[in-house]
Amino acid sequence: MSVVINARIVAFAVHALAVVASVMLFVWSICYRGGFAWESTNKTLLIFNLHPVLTLTGLVILGGEAIISYKSLPFEKRVNKLIHLVFHAIAIILGILGIYAAFKHHNEKHVPNLYTIHSWVGIGVIVLYALQWLYSFIIYFFPGGSSTLRRDLLPWHIFLGVFVYVLAVGNSVLGFLEKLTFLEKSGLDKFGSEAFLVNFMAIITILFGTFVLLIVYSKSPPSVEEDNNYSYSPI
Amino acid sequence: MSVVINARIVAFAVHALAVVASVMLFVWSICYRGGFAWESTNKTLLIFNLHPVLTLTGLVILGGEAIISYKSLPFEKRVNKLIHLVFHAIAIILGILGIYAAFKHHNEKHVPNLYTIHSWVGIGVIVLYALQWLYSFIIYFFPGGSSTLRRDLLPWHIFLGVFVYVLAVGNSVLGFLEKLTFLEKSGLDKFGSEAFLVNFMAIITILFGTFVLLIVYSKSPPSVEEDNNYSYSPI
Repeated sequence: MSVVINARIVAFAVHALAVVASVMLFVWSICYRGGFAWESTNKTLLIFNLHPVLTLTGLVILGGEAIISYKSLPFEKRVNKLIHLVFHAIAIILGILGIYAAFKHHNEKHVPNLYTIHSWVGIGVIVLYALQWLYSFIIYFFPGGSSTLRRDLLPWHIFLGVFVYVLAVGNSVLGFLEKLTFLEKSGLDKFGSEAFLVNFMAIITILFGTFVLLIVYSKSPPSVEEDNNYSYSPI
Repeated sequence: MSVVINARIVAFAVHALAVVASVMLFVWSICYRGGFAWESTNKTLLIFNLHPVLTLTGLVILGGEAIISYKSLPFEKRVNKLIHLVFHAIAIILGILGIYAAFKHHNEKHVPNLYTIHSWVGIGVIVLYALQWLYSFIIYFFPGGSSTLRRDLLPWHIFLGVFVYVLAVGNSVLGFLEKLTFLEKSGLDKFGSEAFLVNFMAIITILFGTFVLLIVYSKSPPSVEEDNNYSYSPI
């Protein structure tokens, strides 16, 4: 049930959308929200701003690039697997730092933690992402399971990986909505440039995730398939 | 890359979660939000309440049951196909009525329309859902495309259908977050019973959608496969 596409061409759309999303995110954080800082007296603007940048570039963008590495990169399977697991590891570290920034911001501003569905899903995403990485590392990298186990587990590795990734993408959109709703309740123009920027960032994020999953559920046209010997398979 | 499960057993989890989500939704609407009405002087409580009930029971719950009908129901393919397309048609009608209720509520309360990402994605979902239904009806039901066209288009029918469905599920969660944020900004207790009810409804909705997609990306174990002759295929 795979769609027939040339994954290397769709991967260009993924990379392009990653650049667009990152630029929009930095424009928003720096031009509209006052930039970044780890320690600051201006809690709302500076410390909080690290949260969307770290989680989106980590879990969504780097995570997406990690997912498609088997089909988007012209290296041999061994190298692609290494890129796949290293990118995912960096994604998890950035995600943890991003979540820590949100807690730090809340604690320093005496705002309660963990009362929104965005925060609940966020905790779920980071825990499941780390578990997915850990069992996959053990089975597909070191020490490595038997070939039968690896083959039988692969559909579950993909389904659970896609599940966590869709949660991460969806949760980014939840985060954009939550932040924008707070800002609009504090007087931000509902049809102003910042509101449009944030909403379009959410749309770009959804498109990015969709193209990543299009590559996951694709197979190459026959002529391309004969040309290359790499496919989505960490076995 | 299909996971091996017994779809008929997972389908019970889907039906059970559908019941749980529906009950929670009605408890929220009636016990916490004052019930339903199409015409009312109490715009916020009564007209608006139709929106989540119609969209969630339509696009998400009935849509999910329509998606799994090929694998969850013990009928022959012809009957399952009819159930698949009729359930989806009812889902679209309920979705349109639900969206109309939101516009009616906004217009009567003089609240601006279409400024949130929830509303943008919602319009996208209903348009894409209807387009997906229409081209699929023409190709797989009446007048029907050639067998080659139907076979070649099936992976796209599934990918695009799953894409629209994930958007619908995700958008329900966006809606829950948006409504709850509005209520909390107006004084609702962030850790009160209503906040927990809405957040858990969002979790149940995500689980429901996940089990639906688990069935889509599954195949039966060999012994079960020999027993039945129905599979996910509108060809």
